[in-house]
Amino acid sequence: MDNEEKYVEEIADQEDNFSKWYNQVVRKAELADYAPVRGCMIIRPYGYAIWENLQRLLDARFKETDVVNAYFPLLIPRSFLEREAEHVEGFAPEVAWVTRGGGEELEEPLAIRPTSETIIGHTYAKWIQSYRDLPVLINQWNNVMRWEKRTTLFLRTSEFLWQEGHTAHRTLDEAEERTKQMLEVYRAFAEEDAAIPVIAGRKSENEKFAGALRTYSIEAMMGDGKALQAGTSHNLGNNFAKSFDIQYLDSDGQRKYCATTSWGMSTRMIGGLIMVHGDSSGLILPPRLAPYQVVIVPIWRKEAEKSAVLEQVARVEKMLKGKVRVKVDMSENTPGWKYNEWEMRGVPVRMEIGPRDVKNNSVMLVRRDNRAKTPISVDALETHLPELLEEVQQALFQRAVEFRKQNTYATDSYDEFKEIIAEKRGFVRVKWAEDSAAELAIKEETKATLRVIPFDQPEGGVQGKCIYTGKPATCEAIFARAY
Amino acid sequence: MDNEEKYVEEIADQEDNFSKWYNQVVRKAELADYAPVRGCMIIRPYGYAIWENLQRLLDARFKETDVVNAYFPLLIPRSFLEREAEHVEGFAPEVAWVTRGGGEELEEPLAIRPTSETIIGHTYAKWIQSYRDLPVLINQWNNVMRWEKRTTLFLRTSEFLWQEGHTAHRTLDEAEERTKQMLEVYRAFAEEDAAIPVIAGRKSENEKFAGALRTYSIEAMMGDGKALQAGTSHNLGNNFAKSFDIQYLDSDGQRKYCATTSWGMSTRMIGGLIMVHGDSSGLILPPRLAPYQVVIVPIWRKEAEKSAVLEQVARVEKMLKGKVRVKVDMSENTPGWKYNEWEMRGVPVRMEIGPRDVKNNSVMLVRRDNRAKTPISVDALETHLPELLEEVQQALFQRAVEFRKQNTYATDSYDEFKEIIAEKRGFVRVKWAEDSAAELAIKEETKATLRVIPFDQPEGGVQGKCIYTGKPATCEAIFARAY
Ligand SMILES: [Zn+2]
Ligand SMILES: [Zn+2]
Repeated sequence: MDNEEKYVEEIADQEDNFSKWYNQVVRKAELADYAPVRGCMIIRPYGYAIWENLQRLLDARFKETDVVNAYFPLLIPRSFLEREAEHVEGFAPEVAWVTRGGGEELEEPLAIRPTSETIIGHTYAKWIQSYRDLPVLINQWNNVMRWEKRTTLFLRTSEFLWQEGHTAHRTLDEAEERTKQMLEVYRAFAEEDAAIPVIAGRKSENEKFAGALRTYSIEAMMGDGKALQAGTSHNLGNNFAKSFDIQYLDSDGQRKYCATTSWGMSTRMIGGLIMVHGDSSGLILPPRLAPYQVVIVPIWRKEAEKSAVLEQVARVEKMLKGKVRVKVDMSENTPGWKYNEWEMRGVPVRMEIGPRDVKNNSVMLVRRDNRAKTPISVDALETHLPELLEEVQQALFQRAVEFRKQNTYATDSYDEFKEIIAEKRGFVRVKWAEDSAAELAIKEETKATLRVIPFDQPEGGVQGKCIYTGKPATCEAIFARAY
Repeated sequence: MDNEEKYVEEIADQEDNFSKWYNQVVRKAELADYAPVRGCMIIRPYGYAIWENLQRLLDARFKETDVVNAYFPLLIPRSFLEREAEHVEGFAPEVAWVTRGGGEELEEPLAIRPTSETIIGHTYAKWIQSYRDLPVLINQWNNVMRWEKRTTLFLRTSEFLWQEGHTAHRTLDEAEERTKQMLEVYRAFAEEDAAIPVIAGRKSENEKFAGALRTYSIEAMMGDGKALQAGTSHNLGNNFAKSFDIQYLDSDGQRKYCATTSWGMSTRMIGGLIMVHGDSSGLILPPRLAPYQVVIVPIWRKEAEKSAVLEQVARVEKMLKGKVRVKVDMSENTPGWKYNEWEMRGVPVRMEIGPRDVKNNSVMLVRRDNRAKTPISVDALETHLPELLEEVQQALFQRAVEFRKQNTYATDSYDEFKEIIAEKRGFVRVKWAEDSAAELAIKEETKATLRVIPFDQPEGGVQGKCIYTGKPATCEAIFARAY
């Protein structure tokens, strides 16, 4: 049992030091490593397999809404970034610049894309001529760079992977509709595939995307009560269309500016998975995104038992092939060591197969989330296992919903607000009269930011006063400390 | 019929001007565009959909050989590139350099990866401790940059997309075996999925990868008789292991250097598809990689016929969903215009559905490759269409094999060699005594390069003299002008 103890000792206690726990889990589960270039990360195979599952499921959701994929260049001329005033102000400080190429100094420095609105705007201006060319619904999966001083694997790195969708429309209404449609795609993905409950709504003026008319986001609560913005969708209005001259000839013979949108989800989401579901033994991965949904641990004591066990393991593996993602751990470690290893790595279900199981033509299933053990006949496995995985998926979601509920507060008192933020963390829902100065003051005083103005508002409007300014409230808003 | 003529007029004749034809097809079929950054490209949705199919099929082939995916950083410290002498010599002139980031000059310039052997070598040195950690079998799908003076969409651009596999092994033999195994994966993908016949073999010393012990490649013949290197696999021996100190503790207690490999296929392959299969009407895409395998063109003259036709179209579309990739062209263009449009864009099979077809409960199928027309009952469609697509796939491959056969020459006379290269193009197979100086002289005199020393050599060894030096030949080699 010494190995077990050793394992437990090696991971920091979640409640004592959440960020230490997070970093240890990321490294120990071999999800990612720091790169030799400051602030950049290496996504290791186990972490990248989560990303591949995310890509596959999210991409399918995009395609159901008629989005197609494309690829735009990594490098963006400086002059492009400068064309939309708010945009350059927001991104210029974080840009990495290419100044030499092919042995020569470049005439104009090229930015490594921090995001691609500008180069895509330039391109759409050439592609779009008539209303018949609209809408344009394009996404790209790529890498972007935003030079960061303080970095955390997955959550904030100078280079990260993401997808960025960019659409162009005839009308502002249509752009607004698409902006909200893509936020709903993110919500559904987060809740159904990642088992992460989110609050969907609008960002404040302070927190919106540099150059957007309006930004919507989904906000999730992490295991320490802090918020993570898990996906954003921006209605860019005519801003980029005007800066890049994206016009179309409408059916009425008039030339008009397009309305555009952009929306993105990134490898941050993997950080979210870890922080929402993990526990003191390590990762807990939702079955739909887990690289391995089931790990099979063969058990035998005597050499005589070995061949029967391995035969049964092979039979079960073959039976589940193409239906469930299975890993058979054939390493030389002890079963106990393997249990700890795969618990730490978050595999949703462990399957133990020992001599007695072979005799009974059964296996022992152990859930990662609640450690419940169920013996089950091999004949029932093909039907039962997918059901069990779905149960685990739902249980993780429900547990996260419950946790969020327990850590969400409503108050009309700013003193209480400060106390909650300082001592309890979690989300605080308050009455709010949208005011950027008040928002900045709260951030200054408490480190809490306005995460989102939820779509879900009281029926018949908000009554009462803003928690900070005392002005008549116009909405309810969620504040929290955030990643 | 004016539209048809117009279409034909707009594409250059393949035989008159192959490169003009190529560029027109790429632009007109909306596969790619030049970017505002010199030498970079935008891959448009129709071109990117080909890349997605390629990724899916090739990635599945990798995973069958136990390869897993990961992601390594975009930026590589200059000192890393400089550590392997041949490697830096080969790549330094093409590198784009980041010199500023986050508002500051960087202490050390960072290269945008031209390829990732160095940063991966550095990482493997940390990950690999013992023989139990081996082999490491990792691939990544990413973007790379090699600053190019003269560029052609897909074939040679400063930024391109590719996959680069990097493996580490205990022994040189095992690395050699993996190098050849991955070349075989490329061969099978090229021939079975892309319908492109290739010659697999070894590169000469002159043409091998900068830093490799040996490079293997697959070489394909384009429609103008020139060669395209379609995939390469490098046995790096201990070179990178020594430069980056990738060592492991072997079971005998000795510390030893790993043997490593790398292998890649890129968006160049899309250029290959175009140039192997296309004709004077435009693209011809092999069904396994085609974004749309079938385009349905509804036909009606009188408004009264429309609803019955569209009903049948919807029925057929639904029947084929998930089995065949179908595009229904509901645009306002005439049927004739649509025929030309989708022929130009290379859709393997066109399905015409008109009032008479509805009455007969049949559809008309027209193959893109040979324009053969077959009426077929709707009830037989679900079975027949996948078969027809497979026939088209095989026919394209056979036609390319035949074309290569007709344009491959064998000669012992250097005068004849020169004449063939100058007048006929194609591949020339010659007896060869491996000699780098002779190879360079031939390149100088004829622009032909040694493409590959095929695995397929005469039984019992090569008899006779080298075509250039007159020394006893050691092998047969293929020369050609190349992209
Ligand atoms: Zn113990
Ligand atoms: Zn005509």
